[in-house]
Amino acid sequence: MNTTALPPIETDCVVIGAGPVGLFQVFQLGLQGLHAQVVDTLPAVGGQCLALYPDKPIYDIPGLPVCTGRELAERLLQQTRPFAPTFHLSQEVAELARQADGRWHLLTSTGTRFLTRTVFIAAGVGAFVARSLRLEGIAAFEGRQVHYQTPAAATLAGQRLLINGADDAAVQTAVEAGRLRQSADANAPRSVTLLHRKDAFEAAPELLAELAALRAADLVRVAVGQAIGLQTHDSAQGLRLTGLQIATADDEELTLPADQVLVFLGLAPRLGPLADWGLAMERKLLPVDPASCGTELPGIFAVGDINHYPGKRKLILCGFHEATMAAFAAAQWLSPNQAPVRLQYTTTSTQLQQRLGVATAPRH
Amino acid sequence: MNTTALPPIETDCVVIGAGPVGLFQVFQLGLQGLHAQVVDTLPAVGGQCLALYPDKPIYDIPGLPVCTGRELAERLLQQTRPFAPTFHLSQEVAELARQADGRWHLLTSTGTRFLTRTVFIAAGVGAFVARSLRLEGIAAFEGRQVHYQTPAAATLAGQRLLINGADDAAVQTAVEAGRLRQSADANAPRSVTLLHRKDAFEAAPELLAELAALRAADLVRVAVGQAIGLQTHDSAQGLRLTGLQIATADDEELTLPADQVLVFLGLAPRLGPLADWGLAMERKLLPVDPASCGTELPGIFAVGDINHYPGKRKLILCGFHEATMAAFAAAQWLSPNQAPVRLQYTTTSTQLQQRLGVATAPRH
Repeated sequence: MNTTALPPIETDCVVIGAGPVGLFQVFQLGLQGLHAQVVDTLPAVGGQCLALYPDKPIYDIPGLPVCTGRELAERLLQQTRPFAPTFHLSQEVAELARQADGRWHLLTSTGTRFLTRTVFIAAGVGAFVARSLRLEGIAAFEGRQVHYQTPAAATLAGQRLLINGADDAAVQTAVEAGRLRQSADANAPRSVTLLHRKDAFEAAPELLAELAALRAADLVRVAVGQAIGLQTHDSAQGLRLTGLQIATADDEELTLPADQVLVFLGLAPRLGPLADWGLAMERKLLPVDPASCGTELPGIFAVGDINHYPGKRKLILCGFHEATMAAFAAAQWLSPNQAPVRLQYTTTSTQLQQRLGVATAPRH
Repeated sequence: MNTTALPPIETDCVVIGAGPVGLFQVFQLGLQGLHAQVVDTLPAVGGQCLALYPDKPIYDIPGLPVCTGRELAERLLQQTRPFAPTFHLSQEVAELARQADGRWHLLTSTGTRFLTRTVFIAAGVGAFVARSLRLEGIAAFEGRQVHYQTPAAATLAGQRLLINGADDAAVQTAVEAGRLRQSADANAPRSVTLLHRKDAFEAAPELLAELAALRAADLVRVAVGQAIGLQTHDSAQGLRLTGLQIATADDEELTLPADQVLVFLGLAPRLGPLADWGLAMERKLLPVDPASCGTELPGIFAVGDINHYPGKRKLILCGFHEATMAAFAAAQWLSPNQAPVRLQYTTTSTQLQQRLGVATAPRH
C-alpha cells in the first residue's frame, strides 16, 4: 500500500465513528462553524444502530417516543446535511500521531490521511468487524478457502460449500447457492451445507420458506453442530482445507467435507488500533473531563460509549450531550485566542440559522 | 385558603416544572419504575417551549432536524404517557421543607400538598408569570382596576378601557371590546384604547385587519407611548384610578383616561419562592454534582436551565441528559440498600418494555 503518494486532507475536525453520537458530533461542530471529516469501519453510516438493530425499536430518545435503529440513523444523517460532512467509510483509523506543529496525523487502513487540529473519538465499543471463526490454523486459509463475505460466484463453482451461521446473510447465501444448483447453473456449487449449532435460522419468512423447499429437494443440507477444528490435506500444491470437524449436540464428532467455507457469525466490536494511540485507557474506556469530554491529549475528545467520567451511563442521549460539550470545547480550543464560545439558540440566532441554511425561512 | 383540610399526596417523586426537561424527567423516572407528580405555574404542559415560542422552529434536538416548540412539548408529553404522571397546573410550589422522617413537604399556591422522598427542580429560569406594569402605587388597584388577564365582560360595561400591549392577547382583547361597541352590546365599554410604544402589533393577519377596520370606525383607538404614572382621584368611596400618564415618542406627556386597565406585556420568568427554600444558589442557579444532578440537599435534584456545573450549557438536549443522570441517582437513593442501579436498554430489556407497555409487541 503506497500511502505516501496521497497528500493528507487538512482539516479542523476528524470524527472517528459514524454512529448516532458521531453524527450528532458532526451536527454540533457544524453549529460552531466547523466542518468534519468522518471515518468509520462499516460500509454505511449509522454505527451499531444500523449494523446491529436496524429494525428494533428504541424508546428513550427524547422527543421520539419510538423509532428503529435505522430511522434514528437516517434522522441524524439528515440533521448533518447542512454541514456536508465528508464520510470515509469501510476503513479504520490505523495510526494517530502528534505532529511538531500540534496537529494530529491520522492514517486509515485504506491509506486516507488527515492532518487535523481536533479529533473526536465516537467509536462506541470499538470498530465492528465480522466475528471470526476461531479455529487453530484457520488464518492460513482466509481469503482463499475461508471467507467472511460472499466471494464471486465463479469461486464456488463445483465446490463443496459450507456456510456457517444462522442470520439473514447466511440463509440468503445458502438459498442463492441452492438456486444455482436447482437451475444447474455453470457456477453451481457441488454441494451446499448450512451449519449452525441448532436447526433454527433468523431470516425473512419468504427466505425461510425457500430454504425449506431447497432442503426438501436435497439441494441444500442443514448440519447441526459446532466447528471445532479443520481437516486439511497436504499435497504438492500446498496445504488445502478439505473440511471442518464438527461437534454435534450429542457431543459426537464428525467431519463435514468443504472446499469453501463462508462464515456469517455477525459483527463483533474490536477496540483495534485505538488501544495503541498512547491514550490512557481504563477498562477499555477513555477517561474524559465531563465539562469538555477532552481526553488527556490536547485536541482529542472522546464521546459516547467509549468515554468514561463519574456517573457515566452508556446511553445514546447522553452521548448527544457529550458531543455538544466537546463541540463547545473544541470551538474554544480552535478559536484564535481561545475565547469563551457564546451560547446561541437555533430558534433565535441568525448566525446559527445561516449555518443551518434556514436563515431565509419566514419568521414571526 | 384552608390548606390543612386536604391530606398531602404521598409519593416518591415530585417534578417542579412541566417544560421539556421536566417532561423527560418524568419519562426517565418512569423507566426506573417511579411515578411522578408534576407541578407547573402555567396552565398547560410544555413550559417556555409552549409559552414563549410555540410556533418557532428548533433545530438542535437530536433526531428532530426541525420541530416547533409546541411539537416538541407534544412529543415529550406523548413519551410520558406510559407512566401516567399526575399534573398539578396553574400553581406554584410555595414551600419546601424537610420532615423529621427525611421526606420533603411541598405546598403549592393553590393548597396542593405533597410528602415526597425526592424532588426534581426543572424550573428553567423560574416560574413564568405575566410581566407586570411597574408604576408606583399600582398594586393598590390590581384585581379591581388593573388586570393581567381579561376580566368578566360585565366588569368592563360602560367603562373607559385601556389595553396595554402589542401581542396577540392584547389585540384580541381590543378587537373583542371593539365588537361589543359595534353591536351596541349591553357589556360594551364606553371607550377602547390600545396602548403600545409604537403603532405596530403582533397578531394573526385577520385579527390585525379587524383591528384596522375598528380603528377606521373609531370604535378602537390606538395610543402610542409608554405608561409612566397613574392618575388617581380620592373621594368618599376611596382612591380610584382615573387614567395613565403617558410619555409619547416625542417625549411629551399626556394622560389617557381609564377606568379599567388590562395589561398584556407577555410572560417573564420569576425565581419566586424557590429562592427561599434554603438551597445554596449562585447567580440564581442551583449548583449540582453533574454525576447525579443532586443539590447539596439529600433527595433534591436540579435539572435543565436552573442548574449549574462546570461546562454547563443551557440547552434542552443537555437537560435531557441531566434528567437521566438524576433519575438514575434517585433510583439508587430510593432503593432499599442504595444498591447501584443497573443500566438497561429499552431495545432489549423486557422489564423496561413492560414499564413502557410495549412488552407484547412483536419482536424479531
